[in-house]
Amino acid sequence: MNDDGGWVLRSTRKLFRSPWFDLRQDELTLPTGEDITYTVVEHPGYVMVVPLDAEGRVLLERVYRWTVQDTVLECPSGGLDGEDPEVAGRRELLEETGFTAARWEPLGSYYGSNGISNERFHLFLATGLTDTGHHAREPTEQMELEWHGLEQAVAMAVSGAVADAPSAFGLLLAQRHLARAGE
Amino acid sequence: MNDDGGWVLRSTRKLFRSPWFDLRQDELTLPTGEDITYTVVEHPGYVMVVPLDAEGRVLLERVYRWTVQDTVLECPSGGLDGEDPEVAGRRELLEETGFTAARWEPLGSYYGSNGISNERFHLFLATGLTDTGHHAREPTEQMELEWHGLEQAVAMAVSGAVADAPSAFGLLLAQRHLARAGE
Repeated sequence: MNDDGGWVLRSTRKLFRSPWFDLRQDELTLPTGEDITYTVVEHPGYVMVVPLDAEGRVLLERVYRWTVQDTVLECPSGGLDGEDPEVAGRRELLEETGFTAARWEPLGSYYGSNGISNERFHLFLATGLTDTGHHAREPTEQMELEWHGLEQAVAMAVSGAVADAPSAFGLLLAQRHLARAGE
Repeated sequence: MNDDGGWVLRSTRKLFRSPWFDLRQDELTLPTGEDITYTVVEHPGYVMVVPLDAEGRVLLERVYRWTVQDTVLECPSGGLDGEDPEVAGRRELLEETGFTAARWEPLGSYYGSNGISNERFHLFLATGLTDTGHHAREPTEQMELEWHGLEQAVAMAVSGAVADAPSAFGLLLAQRHLARAGE
């Protein structure tokens, strides 16, 4: 990161600000000499958690997403607030599901949509789950929790039944991580 | 899709338009009765291709991304222009790499960032590759092509060396698809 690739920033301005993301418009000169305008979604990033219980079941959320007008099966996730991704993962898992996890293993950090956005997400496998019985969801977090065996959840990721790409990808990474740990 | 989830749209307006994405701001009433403002990135969607040659090697692009100020290893991809994803895949593969592919197998369609965007991407495995020797890249497509064995590419997806999530996910799906086809 912080490689300018030989692109020269001539000017920049904010087009939109919100608590969730901003829009920034940059006037650039490419290494070819061509002048272009590039509009970037500025996103603080987010954490996504694959919560796995002692019986090998994954805790997923069936959540309504206004953006796609669809109810989508997802892993618990939430935006970063400038803090450490694992700290955010612990908070989001507890707030959305009421569960805590004893063990947090990173599965990787990836760009989500780098054609238009600087969004980066951080994946964790969370095990040693305990149900506190209390969640604290946001008003827009209209969801139901579902348990699925990991193999079944992975099959749903591959078939598209888990239609959210970061969740589906996280499930495949969790399966590989566990297979390797068990070798 | 097209499920309103009981959310009532009171008004909507465009905040930003561009050839790549728009920004739409909706005033909504949630099923709880609470009024909220939800700003949605409207994206036409894109296609992403895993090109695999007869020697089992994957064709990847090392491309500079201004959004993340980083040079990222990716699968060939490009925005949809309202057309069929496979048609777009054929065009983008040819324009970016100069290759055509005889066989196109869908690997799935997924939401990329459904907390803020309606973006959906369509993954394909493309085999039977032929090099035309001619590409036609956009000025912003500052890239080099690289061949990697599929197993190595998957290892790079898991390690984060392929830092673009849709590309890394696509490589894992391609590997599973081929393993199942070979069973």
